[in-house]
Amino acid sequence: MPREVAIVGCGMAQFGNRTDKSLMDLLKEASTKAMEHTGLGETNVSALYVSTMLAGELTNQTAIASALADELCLVPAAADRIENGPASGGSAVKNAYLAIAAGLFDIVLVVGGEKMRQVPGDRITDLLATMTHPTAEYIHGVTLPSLAAMFTRLYMNKYGVERKHLSMIAVKNHENGLKNPYAHIHRKITLEGIYSSPEAEVNNPVIADPLRLFDMCPISDGAAAVVLCSADIAKRFADKPITVAGVGQATDIHAVSQRPDPTTLNAVKISSQQAFKMAKLEPKNMDVVELHDAFTILEIAESEDAGFFEKGTAHKAVEAGVTSLGGKLPINPSGGLKARGHPVGATGIAQVAELTWQLRGEAGERQVKDAKKAFCCNFGGFGNNVVSFVLKRED
Amino acid sequence: MPREVAIVGCGMAQFGNRTDKSLMDLLKEASTKAMEHTGLGETNVSALYVSTMLAGELTNQTAIASALADELCLVPAAADRIENGPASGGSAVKNAYLAIAAGLFDIVLVVGGEKMRQVPGDRITDLLATMTHPTAEYIHGVTLPSLAAMFTRLYMNKYGVERKHLSMIAVKNHENGLKNPYAHIHRKITLEGIYSSPEAEVNNPVIADPLRLFDMCPISDGAAAVVLCSADIAKRFADKPITVAGVGQATDIHAVSQRPDPTTLNAVKISSQQAFKMAKLEPKNMDVVELHDAFTILEIAESEDAGFFEKGTAHKAVEAGVTSLGGKLPINPSGGLKARGHPVGATGIAQVAELTWQLRGEAGERQVKDAKKAFCCNFGGFGNNVVSFVLKRED
Repeated sequence: MPREVAIVGCGMAQFGNRTDKSLMDLLKEASTKAMEHTGLGETNVSALYVSTMLAGELTNQTAIASALADELCLVPAAADRIENGPASGGSAVKNAYLAIAAGLFDIVLVVGGEKMRQVPGDRITDLLATMTHPTAEYIHGVTLPSLAAMFTRLYMNKYGVERKHLSMIAVKNHENGLKNPYAHIHRKITLEGIYSSPEAEVNNPVIADPLRLFDMCPISDGAAAVVLCSADIAKRFADKPITVAGVGQATDIHAVSQRPDPTTLNAVKISSQQAFKMAKLEPKNMDVVELHDAFTILEIAESEDAGFFEKGTAHKAVEAGVTSLGGKLPINPSGGLKARGHPVGATGIAQVAELTWQLRGEAGERQVKDAKKAFCCNFGGFGNNVVSFVLKRED
Repeated sequence: MPREVAIVGCGMAQFGNRTDKSLMDLLKEASTKAMEHTGLGETNVSALYVSTMLAGELTNQTAIASALADELCLVPAAADRIENGPASGGSAVKNAYLAIAAGLFDIVLVVGGEKMRQVPGDRITDLLATMTHPTAEYIHGVTLPSLAAMFTRLYMNKYGVERKHLSMIAVKNHENGLKNPYAHIHRKITLEGIYSSPEAEVNNPVIADPLRLFDMCPISDGAAAVVLCSADIAKRFADKPITVAGVGQATDIHAVSQRPDPTTLNAVKISSQQAFKMAKLEPKNMDVVELHDAFTILEIAESEDAGFFEKGTAHKAVEAGVTSLGGKLPINPSGGLKARGHPVGATGIAQVAELTWQLRGEAGERQVKDAKKAFCCNFGGFGNNVVSFVLKRED
């Protein structure tokens, strides 16, 4: 039997345009906050995992995990960097889980971050496109926004999703982001302003038809961290340790156009089913959910393929307010990638951090009342590598 | 209790100047050989780990683990990329070990590779230098050869190592490499030719004083793979499964100049002690060893700090032939990094593959007779992140 694993602390470095700090400093900031939140005191972290997608390409630093171990005075702790595209953070949490479950390490720091805003946007778009299929996609100029646009069009045609539904996701997540001090974007938007008013065409221009500006997450700097430990020592560090009840990860056919049904996110399906099965829980048991809304359509599609709504119906749930704060199943109370931002290597960890705060009742204005069970899904590539977790509070 | 983990197969793609294949093709070649060597048949791999240091920087491919899962028809297997500088391969094997020990995955493929030769050498030297300390080393122009040169000079002054001892390492490892069909360099050299003859100055010119051409490993393309599984099912795949008896990993102070004694490789010491302790074995029990001789001095220093020789005495053991094939403790029968080559992400896995062949008695002309217990050490940065393993054959 593997050991049970708990989350005992978390921290974030403000997402946004962080011209004030290097990637290393952002990682240190989030790590320090997470270790303080944990109340480790003199107890040592025995290993760390660092997730970043583009540290080498953007900041001329490889083997960054070793450097961070030194910067945080954690030497001789074991240290690895995980790079798994936008799922880097989820992968890092998974490997930390395994390290503890296997019994080789007791307390593990997981921290991820990215510093993306100090280079031109087209360079970032190109670097992100290196996660697509090298010969079937990348060399033809495919980018993530172009894949998302095609996916959205197919989805609209097949399931009747309309532009207004996409805009509703943006409005909801901006609303939530206003309540998250760490969010990149603190800006109230309205459905009128980005969709129905005459100014909407100007306010919310087409980027990759049918996607518009407010259907895209921003390019962000930032970092997030969590501390995991063996459940049997978790009470030393947290009154309310959060149990990692379920873990799932799955890959999918790499080139989106080669999938039998491109509107089905198989890796979301499989990884979420694995996580729920391991946790002996079902989607209907979840109180709060964080999804990977790099594009608005993804929140809709993931919420269906993870089992929260029948396929083709999630947009109606959004319209009915089911997924809003105060709704039956709040999705992305943090603001999601849309408003919290998307420093790629941080995102999967920021999801776990948000759920940890939610389950501990520490989420402030965006607190989902009495949340006890939670789910998140970190989406890599265009759905070719997805990591899912089910977390729960032990009472 | 964590589950026992076994190695049940391995494979390599020829190291060298692989203009014929892309990085992806090299990874596929090594993976396919390892899966065939394992005799998996219709049995599926449940997860894969891919180690590469510079896939993004050199081949415009990020999130490469997802792509490889698809290329190998392993979807929906979980897939992560590990980047830990030159210790990427060791880190990947460690995480695969944890995945199985924790009970979440049963059969895991680990593959690592690099494609480094199709860019100018000074670009590679700079990219490799990104693993050094960003503010204390990198921005001042420190490179790996320069660190190795300073380390060698200190070592010579302190312990009486002479240029001839370094050359003896090169001669020994070239000799071994001639017997390894996968080695990058198949070239016999003699102590006379690179050290004592009048032509030696020309044959073996100074690169970074006191280091000369034959003190450096080559820049290589190549890939290596191993398949690990839960020990309780290992006999299905291998008559002689190899047990992962000990695992160790440690970091060290990042900037070499800030270490209390720069000639002591603390991460080698700690990680090897962890691995031996876990295996309940000692250095004297080992029959064959693979060390990370990116520079000749490192084979000497690592063999001391891992506990095989008293500090300051390994060069005498080399001189006495103790570490030669046929000696009491053969080191780097594969040819080591010096002759097998050093496609960075492949190296830690190639070490484990070599020991697997040795312990199975499949090492051909370079077979260490009746080898039953083995050790390897994968050295990241300039010793700031080291992964060690103790492997043994179950009889």
